[in-house]
Amino acid sequence: MADLLSELASRLPSDRIQTDPDVVAAYSQDRAIFEPAGTAAILVSPRSTEEVVAAVNAARETGAIIVPRGAGTGLTGAANAIDGCLMISLHNMNQVVEIDPINRMCRVQPGLVNANLKSAVAEHGLYYPPDPASLDMSSIGGNVATNAGGLCCVKYGVTRDYVMGLEVVLASGEVIRTGRKTIKSTTGLDLTGLFVGSEGILGIITEVTLKLEATPPEPSTAVAYFADLADAGRAIVAIFEDGLQPTVMEIMDQGSIRIVEQHFPMDLDTEAACLLLMQSLEEDQPIEELAKRCAANGATFVHHAVDPVEGEMLLEARRKVWPSAEKLGKSLLPEDVAVGREKIPDLLAAIVAIADKHNLVIPTIGHAGDGNLHPLFIFDENDPDELALIKVAFEEILTVTLAMGGTIAAEHGVGTLKRQFVSKEIDPVHLALMRSVKVLFDPSSMMNPGKKL
Amino acid sequence: MADLLSELASRLPSDRIQTDPDVVAAYSQDRAIFEPAGTAAILVSPRSTEEVVAAVNAARETGAIIVPRGAGTGLTGAANAIDGCLMISLHNMNQVVEIDPINRMCRVQPGLVNANLKSAVAEHGLYYPPDPASLDMSSIGGNVATNAGGLCCVKYGVTRDYVMGLEVVLASGEVIRTGRKTIKSTTGLDLTGLFVGSEGILGIITEVTLKLEATPPEPSTAVAYFADLADAGRAIVAIFEDGLQPTVMEIMDQGSIRIVEQHFPMDLDTEAACLLLMQSLEEDQPIEELAKRCAANGATFVHHAVDPVEGEMLLEARRKVWPSAEKLGKSLLPEDVAVGREKIPDLLAAIVAIADKHNLVIPTIGHAGDGNLHPLFIFDENDPDELALIKVAFEEILTVTLAMGGTIAAEHGVGTLKRQFVSKEIDPVHLALMRSVKVLFDPSSMMNPGKKL
Repeated sequence: MADLLSELASRLPSDRIQTDPDVVAAYSQDRAIFEPAGTAAILVSPRSTEEVVAAVNAARETGAIIVPRGAGTGLTGAANAIDGCLMISLHNMNQVVEIDPINRMCRVQPGLVNANLKSAVAEHGLYYPPDPASLDMSSIGGNVATNAGGLCCVKYGVTRDYVMGLEVVLASGEVIRTGRKTIKSTTGLDLTGLFVGSEGILGIITEVTLKLEATPPEPSTAVAYFADLADAGRAIVAIFEDGLQPTVMEIMDQGSIRIVEQHFPMDLDTEAACLLLMQSLEEDQPIEELAKRCAANGATFVHHAVDPVEGEMLLEARRKVWPSAEKLGKSLLPEDVAVGREKIPDLLAAIVAIADKHNLVIPTIGHAGDGNLHPLFIFDENDPDELALIKVAFEEILTVTLAMGGTIAAEHGVGTLKRQFVSKEIDPVHLALMRSVKVLFDPSSMMNPGKKL
Repeated sequence: MADLLSELASRLPSDRIQTDPDVVAAYSQDRAIFEPAGTAAILVSPRSTEEVVAAVNAARETGAIIVPRGAGTGLTGAANAIDGCLMISLHNMNQVVEIDPINRMCRVQPGLVNANLKSAVAEHGLYYPPDPASLDMSSIGGNVATNAGGLCCVKYGVTRDYVMGLEVVLASGEVIRTGRKTIKSTTGLDLTGLFVGSEGILGIITEVTLKLEATPPEPSTAVAYFADLADAGRAIVAIFEDGLQPTVMEIMDQGSIRIVEQHFPMDLDTEAACLLLMQSLEEDQPIEELAKRCAANGATFVHHAVDPVEGEMLLEARRKVWPSAEKLGKSLLPEDVAVGREKIPDLLAAIVAIADKHNLVIPTIGHAGDGNLHPLFIFDENDPDELALIKVAFEEILTVTLAMGGTIAAEHGVGTLKRQFVSKEIDPVHLALMRSVKVLFDPSSMMNPGKKL
């Protein structure tokens, strides 16, 4: 560590380097409470690509491991410190470099918070769609490194769909600019996609070029209760088979309806099997079309509103799930799995069965339009028996998801939380190839080792 | 070759293997007439992934080089034979494997022709947007391998934006399935993007999983003549700055207007500097909005039509550029460059200046909405002086494009045609990394060597 510190001190302004254990510890853990974080040696907070290069070179030359970090809102331990590592936090590289309204692109530094990016481009009549729940805190670099999703993906796609190019500092200290700066380009191999969702194991993202959309109008909103999960499933299928296009399609199961009503009474139907919450743009179809498909498939109550304020109120129940769970004073662990849209009722039913079997509380919310569910484990982490049950149930949900042809990591990434399960989804030949790509980019395994793959 | 033939014969049904020099030659060249094609030893036309694996293994074990081929409509020599190589044509693997209307995806074999894919999914109310000019002939595998563009990219994006996953046979004979089968997934590194636009140098694509859209309504159409390229440029900029969204925005310069009017008289304004042809959906904005921006920025004539039949007639001039050029009885070489949208008038003016300087005919058409121009060289390839001038002008256009921050290969790929210019766009560190990725995937350099990078 003395070597690393002196190398860093010789290359960087002193205010970029922190060694106070309390400060370093504050930047050493993401929000995956289950996952153990090691003790980092030093924290560097660079203010330019050149400073990132300097830090990477210092680490490489002294044999130190690097863990890069965005805003620390990750849910899988990908940004957790490793004992003795150099933490590189990108939070001070938070500038908008360029907004180009003519080509509907922008270039930004990785530490820029998602919501600040949205506001900056909105001033030019532009829209950056990806909207992870963490958008008020999470940074674009972290969004790219985890390929973050959100609510609007059902129409607009995930972070991957907006990344046109990246500036990356490699383990070698070299800097590359991947992708394209024009709307079309086919020159060279496009390495951009490798880094999207790579969770810091291939290099450090120091600039992001994003595609933008023209600002859409306000959406309309519809909500529908179902007494039977299968009916909700049929409504979801009908909406997509009939060519309709929601911008948001969220689902709350009975468990999540009940914890919200318990802590934030709003007259929800706590006997319903689930609540479907949808938004759509008039230009895609009148909101009535979504409501009709729910009514025609057995919804017990359907309401829709074109007024944006009323629409936001209708979505309030969805927003209160996490705050309600927090009020229980226990630990929370959100699962993150996805299946085909048609399998949502089956997966929800399987989750309820797993919860019942183990006598656990697992309210589930999800992005039904993406087939993406977030079962929410609520437990006492000081109760070893409950903890053991949680781990069993967690793995059972992954297993049932894979059996339905789904994915164990829809939009939160892998980190350390799910690393042991990756080989259950990715076959050995493919996984070996991914690992050889990691070795190519990082031969000494200094970039966030032990994560992702 | 005897070794290769016997190895192939021992692994494949005999009707998959062709050695007749005339047959082999017919599958040994794409449409890059300038680019020399070698003499392939053997042609294999597999009917399954397993047969592709067998052919790759036979080639590897006998030290043969492989050139994979889709429909042969490429414009850069990427699918041209190399002396003594094994050509693997995917044209018999042309089946739709699965259409999934609920999740708006399909899985198809690589030999499926783009237009046939479009019709197959249209029966389910679905739409596959990418529309290269070759869509009636070119195959999806080739579209993916070149990251093909087209007219609708201005709204819908390029082929890359629709590829969710791939099945690929690697040089090792191993088979991987990249990407995701659910709408969201973050498990593993996503290798999909590496193969999109890789022109056969990393492996052979044997299946493609594509994202689909709901079928859009018929577009409306507008056309506008401009006496001044700069006015057209201002109209283009105004359309995007004002948040409008065309589905098509094509431009024809005076040279291309004139050759069309010469061979297919349709009362075009041959004194105009350029003609802008646009389509858009009523759900995005009334077509009048596009027309208004043209009128407000100096268009000498503007017309718009909501009737689809009239709209298609208005686009007819654009479709007649290539047939008109062919009527000249000379050789045609389409250039393919892209710059920012705001630089279209500058690039058009630079192309005219280059043509004038060398006394060449270079009518230019382009996808103005993508900043993508196709200057069309028309020349006598038996005239060595003219050929020499063409090569100079070709390189001058690439140079001026790069000076404007553009790309030398927008949507046709690199092949052999532009390989020598790649290092002018991609810096040495980045290019070396791309080449090391190639070596990782293909250590013996048996997959289409000498192309792309």
